[in-house]
Amino acid sequence: MAPVTNGRLLFNEVPEGFPVPGKTTIYDGSQTIDLENVALQGGFLVKVLVLSIDPYLRGRMRAPEKKSYNPPFTLSEPIGNYGVGVVIRSENPAVKPGDHLYGFYPFVQYTIQQDAQAFRVLDDKPNLPWSAYIGVCGMPGETSYYAWKEYAAPKKGDVVFVTAASGPVGATVVQLAKEDGLKVIASAGSDEKVAFASSIGADVAFNYKTVPTRKVLEKEGPINIYWDNVGGEILEAALDNAAKGARFIECGMISGYNAQTPYGIKNVMQIVTQELHIHGFIVGNLRHKYVDEFYSKFVPRVASGEIKYKEYLVRGLENAGEAILDVQSGKNFGKCVIVVADD
Amino acid sequence: MAPVTNGRLLFNEVPEGFPVPGKTTIYDGSQTIDLENVALQGGFLVKVLVLSIDPYLRGRMRAPEKKSYNPPFTLSEPIGNYGVGVVIRSENPAVKPGDHLYGFYPFVQYTIQQDAQAFRVLDDKPNLPWSAYIGVCGMPGETSYYAWKEYAAPKKGDVVFVTAASGPVGATVVQLAKEDGLKVIASAGSDEKVAFASSIGADVAFNYKTVPTRKVLEKEGPINIYWDNVGGEILEAALDNAAKGARFIECGMISGYNAQTPYGIKNVMQIVTQELHIHGFIVGNLRHKYVDEFYSKFVPRVASGEIKYKEYLVRGLENAGEAILDVQSGKNFGKCVIVVADD
Repeated sequence: MAPVTNGRLLFNEVPEGFPVPGKTTIYDGSQTIDLENVALQGGFLVKVLVLSIDPYLRGRMRAPEKKSYNPPFTLSEPIGNYGVGVVIRSENPAVKPGDHLYGFYPFVQYTIQQDAQAFRVLDDKPNLPWSAYIGVCGMPGETSYYAWKEYAAPKKGDVVFVTAASGPVGATVVQLAKEDGLKVIASAGSDEKVAFASSIGADVAFNYKTVPTRKVLEKEGPINIYWDNVGGEILEAALDNAAKGARFIECGMISGYNAQTPYGIKNVMQIVTQELHIHGFIVGNLRHKYVDEFYSKFVPRVASGEIKYKEYLVRGLENAGEAILDVQSGKNFGKCVIVVADD
Repeated sequence: MAPVTNGRLLFNEVPEGFPVPGKTTIYDGSQTIDLENVALQGGFLVKVLVLSIDPYLRGRMRAPEKKSYNPPFTLSEPIGNYGVGVVIRSENPAVKPGDHLYGFYPFVQYTIQQDAQAFRVLDDKPNLPWSAYIGVCGMPGETSYYAWKEYAAPKKGDVVFVTAASGPVGATVVQLAKEDGLKVIASAGSDEKVAFASSIGADVAFNYKTVPTRKVLEKEGPINIYWDNVGGEILEAALDNAAKGARFIECGMISGYNAQTPYGIKNVMQIVTQELHIHGFIVGNLRHKYVDEFYSKFVPRVASGEIKYKEYLVRGLENAGEAILDVQSGKNFGKCVIVVADD
């Protein structure tokens, strides 16, 4: 078999605001790979099937001198994120051709990997597409599950406010909160997203672009738990409507990721007067505590249809740059997945 | 004995910025009281000896429609706070003349109280003036002790940053942190306050008015624990210099109490990326957990001279309005005490 194209999505330039497809990232189709003969050097050759686009990727598209919890992407190299691929060839006894591996991949069509420990061999469950393993059954679902267990401390009668409630993180939080018997207020950025939030159990769901969050919280709050995916003015409204002793789970603040001047939160004194507990977290650092129950208890409930989720599928690695922008601007409805290849 | 003057400090007007003596509060010497014959109606007559002036009082000098964790002061009525008084007469078997009572008093020279449960009868310990019971051995000391126990979670090698480090709260925190073997960075607002912070064990002490906090934290941090008494720009600097998993103990934010426009905190995303845990608290709600060990273990160490403190004594209830302003503007060096009368 002749060598085939091995397309790549390269980090090309640090964006100043929103990432621009073809500028921040560029698709490069100039490399080829000989799938039958390429040297594996004890490793395994993987055909990438699906790649995840998540809000946090914006944080890695930064200048190398800026510090953060994860390394910046390297200019002229492929960006990377969670994905699922299928093993084509292997010289590593821990994985075999046909295995489906969940883990962190470069944004390429084919990749040779050496460390089998860095990947999880997935079961082929009925009713669970591989894409689910990078969404509700992958890092975003883990995010919701781990931090909810760790920090929510739900009590009877509690009111929870969930932002970005149609995304893979928010929608999972809505469902976990309803399981715990709480009243759920959910916000999202379109009427169709709001309808989905209602359909999965949110008691009050609203479009934050047309209804002021502050008004809704004043009417339906005060809130005992705030799941923050957005930061900024919405965080400010949540602080002003926090109940005594409320828990704030700080998952992300997408409203600020592409802003040139960060928004200043003016009412942090609420932290003192309302005796708030605010927890930031990085999913990877909670994984060891909950990963086993996540895969043994939670994932089967997704497969059974009990836990609902939405996907936003984008076909072709060449369209990943546009998908990155969609996720930063909220154009996607549901978990954004790049379908790199069919199985 | 003829009736004597019963001076009072009345709440006269809601301040817009700093509280103005003679305007925000006014001293009224028009009332008299007949100490021998005034009807007690089953209660007890107390001569007030010392009253506490604390930063948080500013929050009670607000319009009645503004909600907060404590009630607003009532216009034309005496303000109130913690104090120590001596019982002159009593019809309540739980207290007797000569008893020294710690509790919440109106700002008056003499008061008739009914609820003995609301006061604590103090031991007359050698080397412990009654004023200490409203400072390091009272609410401010309790503040430090309770929240440090509850939220600091000190670990070997931790670095702690304490603001307002010469005050009764900050200075106690400095000493608790040193007991736990931590490196202590302390800030205060004058060179003499800084010298005191050093004398009680701070490893690095600086005058935040002449040395940028951010520079000090960049050099001496990152910080694992931040004790916040000030908020604002200093909180922002602390967020930028927080170590992974740092604990922020939000005690107060005096930099904002008298500001017309609140300062906006622009780097709250640090909460997520550094996995911070931020705890607001009100001392009264932690009291039940630690009050017994506070009085049985901590107070004797103050009496023995092991725990150090500074006092800023102001004689005369008529000067309390000025003292309130001193505390809001940081003019006081040490715990501000109004000496209403000698014992």
